[in-house]
Amino acid sequence: MPDAQKALMDLQTGADVLFLVIGAVLVLAMHAGFAFLQAGTVRHKNQVNALSTVLATLAVSVVAYFLVGFGIAYRISFFAGAPDLSGAATGFGPQGLTLAKFVLLAAFAAAVPAIVSGGIAERARLLPQGVAAALVVALVYPLLEGVVWNGNYGLQQTVFDATFGVPFHDFAGSIVVHAVGGWLAFSAVRQLGPRLGRYDAAGGAGFPPSSVPWLAIGTWLLCIGWFGFNVMSAHALQGVSGLVAMNTLMAMSGGILAALIAGEGDAGFIHKGALAGLVAICAGADVVHPAGALLIGGVAGVIFVQVSQAAAGPQWNFDDPLGVWALHGLCGLWGGIACGIFGLASFGGMGGVSFQAQLVGSVLGAVYAMVVGAVVYAAIDMLIGLRLAPEDEQRGADLAIHKVAANPAEDVRLGRI
Amino acid sequence: MPDAQKALMDLQTGADVLFLVIGAVLVLAMHAGFAFLQAGTVRHKNQVNALSTVLATLAVSVVAYFLVGFGIAYRISFFAGAPDLSGAATGFGPQGLTLAKFVLLAAFAAAVPAIVSGGIAERARLLPQGVAAALVVALVYPLLEGVVWNGNYGLQQTVFDATFGVPFHDFAGSIVVHAVGGWLAFSAVRQLGPRLGRYDAAGGAGFPPSSVPWLAIGTWLLCIGWFGFNVMSAHALQGVSGLVAMNTLMAMSGGILAALIAGEGDAGFIHKGALAGLVAICAGADVVHPAGALLIGGVAGVIFVQVSQAAAGPQWNFDDPLGVWALHGLCGLWGGIACGIFGLASFGGMGGVSFQAQLVGSVLGAVYAMVVGAVVYAAIDMLIGLRLAPEDEQRGADLAIHKVAANPAEDVRLGRI
Amino acid sequence: MPDAQKALMDLQTGADVLFLVIGAVLVLAMHAGFAFLQAGTVRHKNQVNALSTVLATLAVSVVAYFLVGFGIAYRISFFAGAPDLSGAATGFGPQGLTLAKFVLLAAFAAAVPAIVSGGIAERARLLPQGVAAALVVALVYPLLEGVVWNGNYGLQQTVFDATFGVPFHDFAGSIVVHAVGGWLAFSAVRQLGPRLGRYDAAGGAGFPPSSVPWLAIGTWLLCIGWFGFNVMSAHALQGVSGLVAMNTLMAMSGGILAALIAGEGDAGFIHKGALAGLVAICAGADVVHPAGALLIGGVAGVIFVQVSQAAAGPQWNFDDPLGVWALHGLCGLWGGIACGIFGLASFGGMGGVSFQAQLVGSVLGAVYAMVVGAVVYAAIDMLIGLRLAPEDEQRGADLAIHKVAANPAEDVRLGRI
Repeated sequence: MPDAQKALMDLQTGADVLFLVIGAVLVLAMHAGFAFLQAGTVRHKNQVNALSTVLATLAVSVVAYFLVGFGIAYRISFFAGAPDLSGAATGFGPQGLTLAKFVLLAAFAAAVPAIVSGGIAERARLLPQGVAAALVVALVYPLLEGVVWNGNYGLQQTVFDATFGVPFHDFAGSIVVHAVGGWLAFSAVRQLGPRLGRYDAAGGAGFPPSSVPWLAIGTWLLCIGWFGFNVMSAHALQGVSGLVAMNTLMAMSGGILAALIAGEGDAGFIHKGALAGLVAICAGADVVHPAGALLIGGVAGVIFVQVSQAAAGPQWNFDDPLGVWALHGLCGLWGGIACGIFGLASFGGMGGVSFQAQLVGSVLGAVYAMVVGAVVYAAIDMLIGLRLAPEDEQRGADLAIHKVAANPAEDVRLGRI
Repeated sequence: MPDAQKALMDLQTGADVLFLVIGAVLVLAMHAGFAFLQAGTVRHKNQVNALSTVLATLAVSVVAYFLVGFGIAYRISFFAGAPDLSGAATGFGPQGLTLAKFVLLAAFAAAVPAIVSGGIAERARLLPQGVAAALVVALVYPLLEGVVWNGNYGLQQTVFDATFGVPFHDFAGSIVVHAVGGWLAFSAVRQLGPRLGRYDAAGGAGFPPSSVPWLAIGTWLLCIGWFGFNVMSAHALQGVSGLVAMNTLMAMSGGILAALIAGEGDAGFIHKGALAGLVAICAGADVVHPAGALLIGGVAGVIFVQVSQAAAGPQWNFDDPLGVWALHGLCGLWGGIACGIFGLASFGGMGGVSFQAQLVGSVLGAVYAMVVGAVVYAAIDMLIGLRLAPEDEQRGADLAIHKVAANPAEDVRLGRI
Repeated sequence: MPDAQKALMDLQTGADVLFLVIGAVLVLAMHAGFAFLQAGTVRHKNQVNALSTVLATLAVSVVAYFLVGFGIAYRISFFAGAPDLSGAATGFGPQGLTLAKFVLLAAFAAAVPAIVSGGIAERARLLPQGVAAALVVALVYPLLEGVVWNGNYGLQQTVFDATFGVPFHDFAGSIVVHAVGGWLAFSAVRQLGPRLGRYDAAGGAGFPPSSVPWLAIGTWLLCIGWFGFNVMSAHALQGVSGLVAMNTLMAMSGGILAALIAGEGDAGFIHKGALAGLVAICAGADVVHPAGALLIGGVAGVIFVQVSQAAAGPQWNFDDPLGVWALHGLCGLWGGIACGIFGLASFGGMGGVSFQAQLVGSVLGAVYAMVVGAVVYAAIDMLIGLRLAPEDEQRGADLAIHKVAANPAEDVRLGRI
């Protein structure tokens, strides 16, 4: 019955392409989320710049990943005609299976500069951010991505399998995407220094968000899109798992509730608590029990609230407007490690993970990003300058870079610009 | 050919998991819709509270449904290891099929407190809303859900099949979700009383919405997500039906056009007319003809416009800021009954429904919610107090509960807070 | 093994229905995008009208396509009972396959009036827009749709196949949807004339957008939904292609980057550059190489920036608030033609296209829309009047038509209305 088998295989391939495309669409919705979360958090005079930066670095990232990054991570290049690219020939898989995978993974890769931009918002120039995005997505991110997710250089085998008996497990990227983004941002924030006037306000609590509704819709777009980020990390319909979807929802809920309590009702914490839980569940979404996911998310919510509040004071001199280091850097790190606890069969998990492997892998990932980030951002700062001129920073990046205020007519009338 | 059969069954299961996850993602988008519809409708000083309440009660609902509600409705508990939960063992189905179903149904369940919150907005405290959400999602909703959708206690057979020859039909929940939410809200609104100053305004028309654009994006998110709410109510790809999708679109369009005419161009009515049509089509989306769906939606749009306007006057003393009783309570009731008319083969429908069964079942569902709601909200009010202190209500729930205004810097400058 | 074959065919059908529904959901998200892009671009006093117009004309379009348009394009009517409509009988396909296709294609059809409304915003009345939407979606659009996509009247064979050896290729509608919308708008804009005071401002640059964040979320919703517009244009899972998804992402990125450079950082251009790229890739998304898609999108971004800026001056007397003629009309035309260049095998494409066929077909499509548009809008203007009364235009369409300002309380306090 070769016809029926052919039909079945066609259906499997088509379903896989659809699966990947749905994932890509949802991760693109996360990019909208990054844009609006940032726009709502920064001051009014920098809203347009927040929106424009996330969109522009997405485009830069796609091109960099197309030209270099995807090839580094997966050893595939696009220098072939379209019939080859979308045919079974030359290893691309029928119906453009590999191309659909590119779309999903490009959206993943572009999340890294989007995360960083939240830490350096309101004072970084656009061009150096574009250059950094190109470097990060072409080289920094895919090197680690390839090692962890594609077995490149055999490091999973020679280091983790050999030492701990299992590979380092990071299902959807608590480390590969989020910790990398958060720790790159850590170095970028240190390189740039705080925003002008950041510690002058009474109590040094910093600038309030310009708009909680915009912050909130950014959060919602991230939450919704995250189900694609996690569920479609299976990369094929055969690997789809209801457990991943459920753990995503549980960790998000745990993060909300923990941040609501730890943050004593603060609206920003309630919303970002959801994200903290989601960052932390990525690594182990496929192996932990739903009750473990609730707990992982809850702990992440508390970590985010406590560390953000501590880091807000002037003694840290660490001005991270969106709290991306705490959110992605620390909660990502926690997620990578927590996968090695709650993923164990003794904690109700699926097993096949090792606490030591997760601890070592997670810390190595964060250190890699922090160190490379220190080099990249220092070099870019030296060569072309990361920071806006002080008068442009005062005036706001909207008018300085993008020629338009968020609400031009109104901003003039109300004296906001 | 057991290999091919195995491959086919794997593909079927994977496709079902994907189907459920897509549905869940879309219903989560509806929650974003609830949040922004409420934020745009309430006064500026309560926008943040609207957003935070919907997000926080979603998290409470997920946990309550996980611990209690899902077990009551479907007789399944999660006290088993992750391998059991996502394996074929112990009745959970391969690839976590039951877990994916949990995610979709938890998002359904959480819609009920989200609906209620729109009726008691601007004056209810957060804690009692959380307690009520827990009670409703753990007990009140799943009891009815299990009876209607899982045949619990055999009531569909002993009451409806035996009396009317067919079960009570509520495909996607005009009654189970919407009428229940709307009639719980009815009781909650009566318990709380109107907002301070609600009838002082000239003509008693009440407070205008703070932001039509936020109201509108809430509506759009609800409309878009509703296709998941309805289409994925099939719960398995095998049951997917283009008729459901088409009827959803037709009823939405009918609601828009009827509300546009009945509301004489009022922008709020145009947008909420779409929702009225969508609420009403849930019950019969799988059995009515597309022309019937257009009519069902149109009638719902008129019901909503007429009743909202009538209920706005001071003689009703019924202050429901989002009109959720008219929208979900009455249009849901209409939808449950209309399914028994337009679902008949003589009206071009699929047949297999009974007008009497729909009338009895719909009214029983609404009465159940109204009565239980009266008890629940009275008890909570007595024990911990539902209502904000008058000075907090005057000041706005944003600063009173959540420490932050919607646009802090601007609100201070413009004297809005 | 007839059981297994039956199961496989059921699965194929179910997957096709799901595929079409996902596409429809995403294209409906584009309609939200149209609404918010327009609301953010027009002046504050016309935001509500922008939102209401897009929603209301969507509903009108659905009904017009249901009653007339779909039948013209695909020779199918819905005058049959629901069992026939969703069964295999009478050519509708099992599980309501044709109905799911209707939902997707109705959302496509409704895009045309949505595009037009951006060109005539801030001065057109609602009723004539509804009449025009009904005419366009019932007749003007489906006539061309049927000729290009359904082979109606054999024109593809007798004209294109016979003359150029291949049919005119427009995969997702650069011409059928976008150029038609853009050139209909061209005629409508000429019929209506510019907004009052449009060329009085210094330099004649026109009115700034009321809100870049609303403009931006409209853009994002369009970008995200566009993946459904393009990928689901295959109409069946069997035809799904990763190449289409990748080309969509590449063209969008090319449009962003080119518009960023050509527009020297202007935020509006960065966002609309994405849309320019997306408009242009529709025609050839299934046949060009990803590098070709990047280039097609880049050229579209430059076209949009240059033409918009040129057309803004008073000498053109062409007041198109959203730039829909340049965006959909010209970039659509470019996309139709570009498909005949980059789709050639010699440019790395899949082949099977002809430059001459694309040039002729694209220009014919645009001319058809421009000419029919001139007749339709002149006739409507003569019979019922397209334009708001001058005092209503001055006051704003929000209060004049929809009884409510965008932010009523605030607008009064701040003297905005």
